[in-house]
Amino acid sequence: MKKLIITVLLIVCAVTYTNGQRKIVHLPDLPGYVTLKCDFHTHTVFSDGNVWPTNRISEAYIYGLDAIAITDHLEYTPHKNYIPVDHNAAWKLTQSAAKEGNIILVHGTEITRDMPPGHFNALFIEDASLLARDSVMDVFEEAIKQGAFIQWNHPGWKAQQPDGIPRMYSIHYKLIEKGWLHGIEFFNDSEYYPLVLTFCEKYNLAVIANSDVHGIISESYSPPEYPNRPMTLVFAKERTHDSLKEAMFAGRTLAYFRDMLAGKEQYAKPFFYQCISIGKVFYENDRNRYLEITNKSDIPFYLENGTAPAPSFIALPANSVTRVTISKKAVSPLVYDVRNIMIGEDNVLRVEIKY
Amino acid sequence: MKKLIITVLLIVCAVTYTNGQRKIVHLPDLPGYVTLKCDFHTHTVFSDGNVWPTNRISEAYIYGLDAIAITDHLEYTPHKNYIPVDHNAAWKLTQSAAKEGNIILVHGTEITRDMPPGHFNALFIEDASLLARDSVMDVFEEAIKQGAFIQWNHPGWKAQQPDGIPRMYSIHYKLIEKGWLHGIEFFNDSEYYPLVLTFCEKYNLAVIANSDVHGIISESYSPPEYPNRPMTLVFAKERTHDSLKEAMFAGRTLAYFRDMLAGKEQYAKPFFYQCISIGKVFYENDRNRYLEITNKSDIPFYLENGTAPAPSFIALPANSVTRVTISKKAVSPLVYDVRNIMIGEDNVLRVEIKY
Amino acid sequence: MKKLIITVLLIVCAVTYTNGQRKIVHLPDLPGYVTLKCDFHTHTVFSDGNVWPTNRISEAYIYGLDAIAITDHLEYTPHKNYIPVDHNAAWKLTQSAAKEGNIILVHGTEITRDMPPGHFNALFIEDASLLARDSVMDVFEEAIKQGAFIQWNHPGWKAQQPDGIPRMYSIHYKLIEKGWLHGIEFFNDSEYYPLVLTFCEKYNLAVIANSDVHGIISESYSPPEYPNRPMTLVFAKERTHDSLKEAMFAGRTLAYFRDMLAGKEQYAKPFFYQCISIGKVFYENDRNRYLEITNKSDIPFYLENGTAPAPSFIALPANSVTRVTISKKAVSPLVYDVRNIMIGEDNVLRVEIKY
Amino acid sequence: MKKLIITVLLIVCAVTYTNGQRKIVHLPDLPGYVTLKCDFHTHTVFSDGNVWPTNRISEAYIYGLDAIAITDHLEYTPHKNYIPVDHNAAWKLTQSAAKEGNIILVHGTEITRDMPPGHFNALFIEDASLLARDSVMDVFEEAIKQGAFIQWNHPGWKAQQPDGIPRMYSIHYKLIEKGWLHGIEFFNDSEYYPLVLTFCEKYNLAVIANSDVHGIISESYSPPEYPNRPMTLVFAKERTHDSLKEAMFAGRTLAYFRDMLAGKEQYAKPFFYQCISIGKVFYENDRNRYLEITNKSDIPFYLENGTAPAPSFIALPANSVTRVTISKKAVSPLVYDVRNIMIGEDNVLRVEIKY
Repeated sequence: MKKLIITVLLIVCAVTYTNGQRKIVHLPDLPGYVTLKCDFHTHTVFSDGNVWPTNRISEAYIYGLDAIAITDHLEYTPHKNYIPVDHNAAWKLTQSAAKEGNIILVHGTEITRDMPPGHFNALFIEDASLLARDSVMDVFEEAIKQGAFIQWNHPGWKAQQPDGIPRMYSIHYKLIEKGWLHGIEFFNDSEYYPLVLTFCEKYNLAVIANSDVHGIISESYSPPEYPNRPMTLVFAKERTHDSLKEAMFAGRTLAYFRDMLAGKEQYAKPFFYQCISIGKVFYENDRNRYLEITNKSDIPFYLENGTAPAPSFIALPANSVTRVTISKKAVSPLVYDVRNIMIGEDNVLRVEIKY
Repeated sequence: MKKLIITVLLIVCAVTYTNGQRKIVHLPDLPGYVTLKCDFHTHTVFSDGNVWPTNRISEAYIYGLDAIAITDHLEYTPHKNYIPVDHNAAWKLTQSAAKEGNIILVHGTEITRDMPPGHFNALFIEDASLLARDSVMDVFEEAIKQGAFIQWNHPGWKAQQPDGIPRMYSIHYKLIEKGWLHGIEFFNDSEYYPLVLTFCEKYNLAVIANSDVHGIISESYSPPEYPNRPMTLVFAKERTHDSLKEAMFAGRTLAYFRDMLAGKEQYAKPFFYQCISIGKVFYENDRNRYLEITNKSDIPFYLENGTAPAPSFIALPANSVTRVTISKKAVSPLVYDVRNIMIGEDNVLRVEIKY
Repeated sequence: MKKLIITVLLIVCAVTYTNGQRKIVHLPDLPGYVTLKCDFHTHTVFSDGNVWPTNRISEAYIYGLDAIAITDHLEYTPHKNYIPVDHNAAWKLTQSAAKEGNIILVHGTEITRDMPPGHFNALFIEDASLLARDSVMDVFEEAIKQGAFIQWNHPGWKAQQPDGIPRMYSIHYKLIEKGWLHGIEFFNDSEYYPLVLTFCEKYNLAVIANSDVHGIISESYSPPEYPNRPMTLVFAKERTHDSLKEAMFAGRTLAYFRDMLAGKEQYAKPFFYQCISIGKVFYENDRNRYLEITNKSDIPFYLENGTAPAPSFIALPANSVTRVTISKKAVSPLVYDVRNIMIGEDNVLRVEIKY
Repeated sequence: MKKLIITVLLIVCAVTYTNGQRKIVHLPDLPGYVTLKCDFHTHTVFSDGNVWPTNRISEAYIYGLDAIAITDHLEYTPHKNYIPVDHNAAWKLTQSAAKEGNIILVHGTEITRDMPPGHFNALFIEDASLLARDSVMDVFEEAIKQGAFIQWNHPGWKAQQPDGIPRMYSIHYKLIEKGWLHGIEFFNDSEYYPLVLTFCEKYNLAVIANSDVHGIISESYSPPEYPNRPMTLVFAKERTHDSLKEAMFAGRTLAYFRDMLAGKEQYAKPFFYQCISIGKVFYENDRNRYLEITNKSDIPFYLENGTAPAPSFIALPANSVTRVTISKKAVSPLVYDVRNIMIGEDNVLRVEIKY
């Protein structure tokens, strides 16, 4: 009873005009805060990256980020035979693209040393060229003078830490004592370090997730395998450069990549509850109650360790409604561990499902 | 600087538990109404369809519908050598699945006659077997006695109307006079009939979109080609069977399939404005203002016929943010035709973009 | 330097006519044999399945199968209040669809008993209704009289074997003694049983993979998660019903699902070598040789346990070319375990990469 | 009857190791020739492109190309404040990446002038810096001296030809007379120019398709919309730089993008027949014969204008088997126009289906 007579125009324009739109990343705000999606670690041709700086802006735009830092290496500039060293070049070249793309641009650079102390990003700086100093402590001092947020990068990177386990050396303790360390990467691209949660908890640092992209974002992170690029979720008072900075120093962050969130419980717990909504019981029979849990976020959640007669496991796929059948013998609230929200080196978020 | 050490558990459970979840169809409510996503035309093995009735419920669940009618043919039961004719079988067999799936089940059947008058669905009936009458006017009368909403199906179906153009015969006028016709299919699967908008406007009938599925929904409608199955959007006071019925008789509907909406301007216009939100100007330079338009719906919109110095064309892809660059010489509001929202046989919705 | 003026016609007809085409499953033949892709375990509305029998044919067609058996339960017919029991109905109803679809149709039925002995399919039978006997040994005898291939289904199904481990009871030994057992399911849908490889090796039985589908194939197996439905690969002399039967009794099979192959080494090894082709060294420098390995099949292969200086791991994604960099200190051939080709309960296929 | 116990290892390594593999582009060879997939028009940061030159090599690798030219503008180097002009930089920087990636690298540059004559690529040159001359005829002369293949780029580009229609000016006739023009772009990214087929036929030039990429290939061309990037298919005697050059000067090419092929009938016709194979009649009944046509290529074909009683239209989707039902009243061969193979400004390829 069918014959296709769909007009041609509609289809064609769908095909023609959809490139380069800005994706909506479905992640909720926290009460009182706006959730900024950020990547604080990217490279360009001005150090060892493969793209012109403006491309980092367009990638941020396409992937729905709010803020980005370009952090070319201070000490490693392998293209210098073709491109004269200019530590502020990427910053200068991206000013108008960032404005036109509604991207908050963070001025940054990467301090690139052997371990210890390893690699660090200085963020929210004013002039990267002043950081090109021999002594690493001089570099940190200059960065701090410029008001920098100092982030320790990939602390368990195997090229510098062969067993993959982050380790604090005396220089790291010294940085902490001076108040010169403000955050640590939990995620660096696909690699992550559970121990970072312990460090951040103990020393009150921000938990960070960055791409450290050198090549092309769309070659590295494509659905279905990678629905999103790595991002630091920052809970800022407003969507402005200064609010972002304030929130970073205050440590109001979560690290997000793939289907995994990590950070402090005080942010992870309300964030989880903002992602889901639990419907009313829409039907019941002799044995069971039926209700729906909606997960409005891009992150699936895996609830486990439920105790009988509650379901032992509930999966809440991203952007989906999940029907849950609950025995009438179970009592609200149900209690679960969320397997993919890490709030400590060895433990995950515990949540309640009230119905 | 990367090495993949993502834990294994997360990935595996994503793989294991995601089947059969309920999709969220991103379509907004209208002020004062909830938008119910409905398909009022489906078949099962009890007439000439290929599935057991409960499968229509699970398909509705998976695709995120709110309501569905199973409408097996009264007069065409080609499986009868294997399955004794029972016009209410599908209705009886789907009661508990519908309840457990939170699907509003509409009792229906298809009256299946040569043109004129063609095929009709009687919806919201009580006993389909009482409609198995010889005279088609007797069938209609019985349906009306049961309180039915009568929907004229695929009025331009080429098997019955070789030129594909819907035509009203005297029996159709008679039905209208008696108040025995309440809606017409604009979309039947991929086929659609612009003239239906004229009929519905003139005689105050509901504009309908149905799948008329005989086979398998997931074989017929899969992304990327078909992001959704055909659906009638019904603007009901509540998400209940009775509110749905009230809204249908009141004609508060839009027809939706692929990237196309069709129906009365009074519903299409506020629906469009609920789908989009226009951001503030976030940046301006000497020549241009920059703002973002967010389309939160699953339907892309194609805005055309803008007059210079405004952009002549703006595409607003589904679930995306679109940056719009507007010359400072342009004056708010900009006026556009939305190419894929039909509000009449020959005309589309005209909208204003205020900034 | 770009403006899109692609003509409209091309795009539209791509959209219009591509449904229902037959997929090409990229799996090579073995020398002297044609590889038939088969599913010997499916259900319809005539037992506890959800589809009309012809839909099993169209599903087989769409997914690129060569042969299929519909195997409704003899002893379990929950739809019988609506559909009178007819054990041969699906067979009769699918004759012409199978011919028109170029699908080899195997007449089958499922013997459905408690464990022991559990569930079995009788394949290549003539009249399923004659198998409706009380004594299960009478059923087997009648099946054998009709020339049946007897397949033991899901021997570790937890509903019948709570620890999930297949176990042979005295009745299974009796079947084997009489020559009344010819194959065992290694894969039943997503579930698989490593021990089946030991049984099949010891008693010279065919290793089988089936879907046991009750619902809808396209709802159960869709890319990217499931690039293919479960299938038994049968190495037949020709693409005919009788050659298929001969090959099954001869045990020339492999079980295939997701990214996993299982079966006897004598078939797994040549099959692997038919899937890949190893190119010549196309470049070498002081340290390394570079060559490409092409995997022409739909199955990715994971080569592991290489010994230094050879690469320890090589992944050969499906339908891709993989560039391999090999130290000049390594010596051809390199030896690897193929992690996803099981040839025994605890061991995988060992292969050589000659260059 | 199912429970998922798929082991974890298999899935995880699929996820981990598949990035960066080389795609197999399914396009057949012609008898006696190997089909090289080529892009002769790309840009890098050394003119107005956004990527470092090695990224053009990795993109070519990932997308399955055989050969690529980097063709930075001679006369337009907007990054020169940051990157000193070096017309051979991209060539020098990509030597080893090309060798390690098994990519044939063609030395090229883009001559960038107002219309007439417009933009041209000089391919297979030796030193681009020698082409930096004031007089355009001097540039051509130097290129020819180096043995260049001269390709006219996007002859209907609206920035230079506002009506979008390519036009030959006296300088173009002069180039042709001197034998200094060897090919013209039919496709430049998504834009194409039917008239190019007439020019190439008349003056015996190669028909070319290039991306002219400035940004990122994977941002511009992704499935499902763009299964492949634009490519020139070159029918070379061997897969070598010199054979490629010989074939280009001999004009043995086809232009390919999206679902469209264009070029001379002498190549288009055998190429089509290499793409498809027509099976034997596998079944016939009173009225019809059934056969299958396999399209082994990545290009769908749309056969139209069949005369009754043959089917009026046959679609042959890419990498699929299509079942064709042919009335017994039809006589072999059936004759069709292939709608998406252009062999002239106004005409498409005519083919025969013999069965």
